[in-house]
Amino acid sequence: MAPVVNGRVLFNSIPTGYPIPGETTIYDTSETIDLDIVPLNGGFLLKTLELSVDPYMRGRMRDPKIESYLPAFPVGEPMEGHGVGVVLRSEFPGIKAGDHLYGTFKHEQYTIRSDMEQLQIIENADGLPWSTFIGVLGMPGKTAYFGWKEYAHPKKGEVLFVSTGAGSVGSLVIQLAKADGLKVIASAGSEEKVQFMKGLGADVAFNYKTTDVAEVLEREGPIDIYWDHVGGETLEAALDNARNHARFIECGMIAGYNNGGLPVRNLMKLIAKSVIMSGFMVFRLEHKYNDEFYKKLTPKVARGDISHREHIYNGLEKLGEALLDVQKGKNTAKAVVHVAND
Amino acid sequence: MAPVVNGRVLFNSIPTGYPIPGETTIYDTSETIDLDIVPLNGGFLLKTLELSVDPYMRGRMRDPKIESYLPAFPVGEPMEGHGVGVVLRSEFPGIKAGDHLYGTFKHEQYTIRSDMEQLQIIENADGLPWSTFIGVLGMPGKTAYFGWKEYAHPKKGEVLFVSTGAGSVGSLVIQLAKADGLKVIASAGSEEKVQFMKGLGADVAFNYKTTDVAEVLEREGPIDIYWDHVGGETLEAALDNARNHARFIECGMIAGYNNGGLPVRNLMKLIAKSVIMSGFMVFRLEHKYNDEFYKKLTPKVARGDISHREHIYNGLEKLGEALLDVQKGKNTAKAVVHVAND
Repeated sequence: MAPVVNGRVLFNSIPTGYPIPGETTIYDTSETIDLDIVPLNGGFLLKTLELSVDPYMRGRMRDPKIESYLPAFPVGEPMEGHGVGVVLRSEFPGIKAGDHLYGTFKHEQYTIRSDMEQLQIIENADGLPWSTFIGVLGMPGKTAYFGWKEYAHPKKGEVLFVSTGAGSVGSLVIQLAKADGLKVIASAGSEEKVQFMKGLGADVAFNYKTTDVAEVLEREGPIDIYWDHVGGETLEAALDNARNHARFIECGMIAGYNNGGLPVRNLMKLIAKSVIMSGFMVFRLEHKYNDEFYKKLTPKVARGDISHREHIYNGLEKLGEALLDVQKGKNTAKAVVHVAND
Repeated sequence: MAPVVNGRVLFNSIPTGYPIPGETTIYDTSETIDLDIVPLNGGFLLKTLELSVDPYMRGRMRDPKIESYLPAFPVGEPMEGHGVGVVLRSEFPGIKAGDHLYGTFKHEQYTIRSDMEQLQIIENADGLPWSTFIGVLGMPGKTAYFGWKEYAHPKKGEVLFVSTGAGSVGSLVIQLAKADGLKVIASAGSEEKVQFMKGLGADVAFNYKTTDVAEVLEREGPIDIYWDHVGGETLEAALDNARNHARFIECGMIAGYNNGGLPVRNLMKLIAKSVIMSGFMVFRLEHKYNDEFYKKLTPKVARGDISHREHIYNGLEKLGEALLDVQKGKNTAKAVVHVAND
């Protein structure tokens, strides 16, 4: 077969505010690859099927001199993130053509790998769509499940507030909390998302763009658990309306991602109310909950007992757009870039 | 006997900044009491010996419309705080003349009480000075001990940073951490306090007024435990220099007490580093650690194995001055107002 184009999304320049497609990222088609004869040197050739676009990625689009929990994306190189792909050819022990892999994928159509670092084989006995493994059964689902198990300590009748409740993490948090018998207050940025959260079982769902968070929490709180994706003023309102011994699960602070971080002024409430605020990264809990997660959640997802949804961006060239939408909250569900069919 | 003056410290007006003696508090001598014949109505007459002045008190000098963990001081009434006193006369079951009591005392020389709420009898077999029971064996000592037991999870060789390390809480935290085999970094606001902290065993002690906190933590950190009495920029520096899975024990945020609270801008580090930040109030842990505290700490204090010191303000009329000193960090040790001898 003749060489084909290997489309790639390159990190082009460090954004000062939002990541702009065509400016901070570029879709590049200059590379070609001959899938039949490209040398593998003991490795394997992977075709990317689905890529996940998540809020945290903005943090990697930074000056490499700034240290953080994940390395900065090198300028001029393809970015990377969670993905699912299929092995086309392999010289690698234990990996064969037709295997499906989940893990960290470069943002390119084809990749040659010579190790399984941050990759695992997916078992898909139920024939779920491959995108499921980067959504409710992927990093976002694990984030919700691990964080809830580790930090929530829910008691029946308690009150949870979750921001970004219609997102891929938040929508599972709502369902976990309802299963544990909690009253759930959830916020999101559109009427459509409000309806979606109600459908998931949220007792109180509101649009933070038209309704004052503090007002809702004063009326419907005090809250025992706050699952935070937002930070800033929403976090302040949650602290103001927390009950003594509340648990704050700090999963994200998107309000600060594009402006260097928003200040929180009322942290003294932590002391007054004996609040425990736990920041966490999903990968640091993987060893503890990963097996349990697949075992418990996969059958529920296969049976349709867990609601989830995806916002599909069709084609790798749409990744930059997805990245911006996720930062602005314009995606209507878990952002998935569909790169290719199986 | 003729009536005697019953000196009282009245809360006179709500401070906007620092509490000013003679303005926000007034020493009042208009009340008299006849100790021999004042009717007890089944209660008991208490003579105040020692009063504790602590940073948290500023929080009670507020508009009562603002809710907090402790009620606001009513304007025109005596303030209150931890104290030790001796019973002069009693008609109350279980309480007799000569008993010494520890607990919440009104800021007045003599008090008639008809209940034991927030009071307990002190056993003082070792003949310790009565002020000890409002210092290292009182609320500040309990704060250090309870908080350390509940939240620190220390491992030998880890690094602790404690701000206000020469204070009544901080100086015990240093000693608990050294006993657990930690490297201790401690800050305070004078050279004299730096020397005192070194004497307690601090490996690195510095004056935050002349040395940059962030610089010290960069050089001597990263830190595994931060015991916070300060908040604001010091807390930001601690977050910047925290190791993954660090524990932040939020005991106080005095940098914000007199200005409505200082913003913290880098809370995203909580997430990146999986930091757990626990706010706490000593009284909420009393049920769990109180007996163990007296049992373990009293003999150590009696033997001199625990270092502690007090800054004595002689006379109830000095209470307003002590209150201001404590907010400004001008006291050189645990602030104790010596009201009367036994």
